[in-house]
Amino acid sequence: MIVAMKENATEEQIQNVISRMVDIGFNVHRTTGTQQTVLAGVGSPASFDVQDFQLMSGVAEAHRITFPYKLAGRGFRPEGTVIRFSNGVEVGGKEIVVMAGPCSVESREQIFTSAKQVKASGAKFLRGGAYKPRSSPYSFQGMGIEGLKLLREVGDAMGLLIISEVMEISQIELMLPYVDCFQVGARNMQNFNLLRELGLARRPVLLKRGIAATIEEVLLSAEYILSGGNYDVMLCERGIRTYETYTRNTMDISAIPVLKHLSHLPVLGDPSHGTGRRDLVPALARASVAAGCDGLLMEVHPNPDKAVSDGAQSLFPEQFATLMEELRLVATAVKRSIS
Amino acid sequence: MIVAMKENATEEQIQNVISRMVDIGFNVHRTTGTQQTVLAGVGSPASFDVQDFQLMSGVAEAHRITFPYKLAGRGFRPEGTVIRFSNGVEVGGKEIVVMAGPCSVESREQIFTSAKQVKASGAKFLRGGAYKPRSSPYSFQGMGIEGLKLLREVGDAMGLLIISEVMEISQIELMLPYVDCFQVGARNMQNFNLLRELGLARRPVLLKRGIAATIEEVLLSAEYILSGGNYDVMLCERGIRTYETYTRNTMDISAIPVLKHLSHLPVLGDPSHGTGRRDLVPALARASVAAGCDGLLMEVHPNPDKAVSDGAQSLFPEQFATLMEELRLVATAVKRSIS
Amino acid sequence: MIVAMKENATEEQIQNVISRMVDIGFNVHRTTGTQQTVLAGVGSPASFDVQDFQLMSGVAEAHRITFPYKLAGRGFRPEGTVIRFSNGVEVGGKEIVVMAGPCSVESREQIFTSAKQVKASGAKFLRGGAYKPRSSPYSFQGMGIEGLKLLREVGDAMGLLIISEVMEISQIELMLPYVDCFQVGARNMQNFNLLRELGLARRPVLLKRGIAATIEEVLLSAEYILSGGNYDVMLCERGIRTYETYTRNTMDISAIPVLKHLSHLPVLGDPSHGTGRRDLVPALARASVAAGCDGLLMEVHPNPDKAVSDGAQSLFPEQFATLMEELRLVATAVKRSIS
Amino acid sequence: MIVAMKENATEEQIQNVISRMVDIGFNVHRTTGTQQTVLAGVGSPASFDVQDFQLMSGVAEAHRITFPYKLAGRGFRPEGTVIRFSNGVEVGGKEIVVMAGPCSVESREQIFTSAKQVKASGAKFLRGGAYKPRSSPYSFQGMGIEGLKLLREVGDAMGLLIISEVMEISQIELMLPYVDCFQVGARNMQNFNLLRELGLARRPVLLKRGIAATIEEVLLSAEYILSGGNYDVMLCERGIRTYETYTRNTMDISAIPVLKHLSHLPVLGDPSHGTGRRDLVPALARASVAAGCDGLLMEVHPNPDKAVSDGAQSLFPEQFATLMEELRLVATAVKRSIS
Repeated sequence: MIVAMKENATEEQIQNVISRMVDIGFNVHRTTGTQQTVLAGVGSPASFDVQDFQLMSGVAEAHRITFPYKLAGRGFRPEGTVIRFSNGVEVGGKEIVVMAGPCSVESREQIFTSAKQVKASGAKFLRGGAYKPRSSPYSFQGMGIEGLKLLREVGDAMGLLIISEVMEISQIELMLPYVDCFQVGARNMQNFNLLRELGLARRPVLLKRGIAATIEEVLLSAEYILSGGNYDVMLCERGIRTYETYTRNTMDISAIPVLKHLSHLPVLGDPSHGTGRRDLVPALARASVAAGCDGLLMEVHPNPDKAVSDGAQSLFPEQFATLMEELRLVATAVKRSIS
Repeated sequence: MIVAMKENATEEQIQNVISRMVDIGFNVHRTTGTQQTVLAGVGSPASFDVQDFQLMSGVAEAHRITFPYKLAGRGFRPEGTVIRFSNGVEVGGKEIVVMAGPCSVESREQIFTSAKQVKASGAKFLRGGAYKPRSSPYSFQGMGIEGLKLLREVGDAMGLLIISEVMEISQIELMLPYVDCFQVGARNMQNFNLLRELGLARRPVLLKRGIAATIEEVLLSAEYILSGGNYDVMLCERGIRTYETYTRNTMDISAIPVLKHLSHLPVLGDPSHGTGRRDLVPALARASVAAGCDGLLMEVHPNPDKAVSDGAQSLFPEQFATLMEELRLVATAVKRSIS
Repeated sequence: MIVAMKENATEEQIQNVISRMVDIGFNVHRTTGTQQTVLAGVGSPASFDVQDFQLMSGVAEAHRITFPYKLAGRGFRPEGTVIRFSNGVEVGGKEIVVMAGPCSVESREQIFTSAKQVKASGAKFLRGGAYKPRSSPYSFQGMGIEGLKLLREVGDAMGLLIISEVMEISQIELMLPYVDCFQVGARNMQNFNLLRELGLARRPVLLKRGIAATIEEVLLSAEYILSGGNYDVMLCERGIRTYETYTRNTMDISAIPVLKHLSHLPVLGDPSHGTGRRDLVPALARASVAAGCDGLLMEVHPNPDKAVSDGAQSLFPEQFATLMEELRLVATAVKRSIS
Repeated sequence: MIVAMKENATEEQIQNVISRMVDIGFNVHRTTGTQQTVLAGVGSPASFDVQDFQLMSGVAEAHRITFPYKLAGRGFRPEGTVIRFSNGVEVGGKEIVVMAGPCSVESREQIFTSAKQVKASGAKFLRGGAYKPRSSPYSFQGMGIEGLKLLREVGDAMGLLIISEVMEISQIELMLPYVDCFQVGARNMQNFNLLRELGLARRPVLLKRGIAATIEEVLLSAEYILSGGNYDVMLCERGIRTYETYTRNTMDISAIPVLKHLSHLPVLGDPSHGTGRRDLVPALARASVAAGCDGLLMEVHPNPDKAVSDGAQSLFPEQFATLMEELRLVATAVKRSIS
């Protein structure tokens, strides 16, 4: 941490700041300029709030220098994390992995049809919600355990990995037999109790960026999972909330290279939630690949107009097939591949 | 719902839209203009997504007209909700109720000192976190059950009501003996499973606005609690995330009169989180009262510079005492009072 | 400026940063820690970009410490600026000054009626646009010079000061005979050529915060005017753009005390543009006064439903009269007055 | 326009709304439902404010249906606009056009070196600022006319088209002999007087999206230029302001396909301002091409560490050369080319 004192700070004020820095575990190096005194705190105390210093008498500015995450930082594993799944699929390697399927599992027929369609076009994971976070209590809330069983059955039948959203602690145990990867939704990115429990699970987790989460907050939430011992975490950019209302969210494509730069964890893009509009999904899916993502999460539905949720942002199966062809070309341009 | 077709929409496109509207439960009134056909959906289907219609062929625009919340809307109780607590304190009545105390319960001495100080200045509730949502897994996470016991003890001793944050379902049962009011933090505003369970609890709930939640989303989250049968819900504006970084958040003072207008639920302001800076808390507390809030939630600490969390936004006890005097004057100007 | 080097920064990288700091005029104090080297740049070079340093090899973080504005900072005039107008009205003193009137001057009758109404309720300035910045080229663009003449005539007749918006350089000369104060709208807050010319004018300027301007950018724009020698500048918070759409803008009430803290310039609030809705204007006007503003700018129209622009946010004259009574009470609570 | 009345609206309220709709030029179609009356306004009045209706007594919601821009809309020229320059370069055709060069013209040597470098890698336009909008009055403000002369000289010598920023009306005449294309910066996107004058100029204009401008506002600003008779307008996405501070702005890649969908005008991307960081420019440049842009505007400097402005976001010449190779591959994937 660096604390710059005001030009007219008194010696007493300076000593107060120094003693507080020492209290929390810093070694303090002092630079007394003709105009301004600067205090550099060296060392890394477990936790402190830089805002406390910003308000102390005589302080002009205080800045934290070290990042508050450790395990999630690129420095922890400079070569990058590759997550290996049972059937040999790897996320974080040379190949870009596509996860696709409907927003919600609606019926046996719907999910089997979906699985066949996304598999045919090259998806490696089938996505589908069994527990649905809906802003209205009156909206469809998912098929629950029945949906999970259908997912597992079709996954096994078709050779697809299964990813599905977990919304609370009690569902972790329940979902373990059915899913290959837990998905944490944007609304739960800071549900810290849930993250901590997922850190104890031995199953990969895809963590979505919250709708107003900073890059640093995403990495701190990942840190909750990693610090429990579960290192198989993927991050996912899915659009942030801005003033622009034409799209449901504003997909922050720059978050993809930024997260890759700051962290060793694989980074995916979700252009379905990122845009909220089927007609924009292909452009943003291509952009995600061009920007360096390790995978994509996309909604595809056999009949989007009849979908019980998120129909507007679900691709028609034939759109998905065409898009996959385009993505293969873009992947080549960035020296990656999509099988 | 209103669907305006494009000028060149075909009859087939129009019929497709009509049949989908009928499918979900609308009666459809059609207006065929010389330029444009407009379809008005009358009735109130339990749940539908207006975005589905926006993307249908031939559609220019689709707008939902009815609000998706029912119990939270002003129309449900035009006279406004007044929540009555055991000791006679009422939230939502003529008196503006102040809830104050430290961010976290840290020790017996700290919480007793805090209680005495806030009580002396006129607070009716003691606030204090026993379970703390912290962005970093390495930060202090609260005293847990020990903290709750201290809160109850001091509350009983001093005649103060107790409000404390609940972070997950398993804590509800655990906290019931100790708190007079549950607080749902901004990060959990859309933790729907938690909200649903709180709807079944027989204890008032203060629901904070999420950091990027719209007014409508706040009311839909309240609806989750109300629809479980728990009608004692208070809303709380605590700052939203914007591009401005001088303050921790941007306190949306206009949300206070807007929520009062749209809903019958009492509305509080939290200028401590709203600004993140002690020096700004008084101005925003006064502004909240001037704008019509029913109460305030504020952080006060016996020694903010030694607080384990949120010290920068905690008032000194003497600041709080002065502020309470100012607030009493502002309350008079809006025909309210603070005892 | 402070530059913190990465833990593994090489001596060559450190020397590169030092030499670049020296190049732009800093004296550099170096602190070599066991883990990290910190460079403190002392002195105040006229202009530099801290981002340049953030990207240099071996740099972990770079922070500018000194504020880039000088004349606009509170330190330049710690006692605060009071702007005195010809008729003895002062902005920035104990009295809170109200400026009111229609969005646009529409006709002789409309502006005379408006003037009489706002004067009767206690306004000191008549506001009214003669040149209107409209997002659509097909909207009413103002009466121009004819509108200015009407403003002057009615101002003289009624003893009201005149404030009106200037949109480009050529209008400055033109407007000088007619207005007592120039208003720079939010869209022109960073029209630097215009600001520079206003710095040469000998007439007070009210500078509105841009719709997405940071506090620092507001003060830098004020600096453009001040640095030309015109020190009679008022700042005005009028709402910023956020994700919330219920209100036209989100009025950042905290900007009022923040600007008062950082600068010596008077600060006004504009709840009409801040909310965009007549029904919210009174609450936010009261909040502005409670938060410490030096004045208010409000739209009032003899018949808002017939206004050619901004009718939805214009108060009815009787609403304005009632509001002024409330504001007088709130002013007392903060030891100010409204005549 | 559609106006939905409240369920309990009186006949008098309905008649008031109808008569106001008729006043501004609508034909009104009324649908009287059992619960709710809906009024559809047919026709297209030159200009009206939908907010006026939202606040009328008895109104539940009011929505404008028709877009307020006409000439900028896709319907005006469904096949898309192609802008042809003197040397045969076309923007809006199959080829993606790259405009590159330093932020500011600094010296004869710098601009000649820049021109040679960007030309060698395939740029068709040389960019360089002669008039610079700087937030601080103490920053370098550009070389002015001398800079323009250098641009023209080097453009002619190297066969590069010249694009440079215009900041105010008086500069239009002055710049005409020297530039092939005017650039309107983000801060001037709503400087309507400037836009109107550019509508009278016979020279293409590149219009940058304002830092907080909606898609609709971009198109309305374009409409100002088009309505003056100048149809050679290009739009440019350059990042919007959000809560995220890791990047200078958040580049809204989805704006590229959205603007292409709504308008016939060519759309460019500016990843330099979009990110503010040289290390992110390549990823976002590739993403822009993958998302369907017609061109790119990028800052390249012979020696970014010595640049007088925007050095942190300027590419090194060798980075630019490598990037251009990557872009050619991505262009192929979307059936476009870069020569």
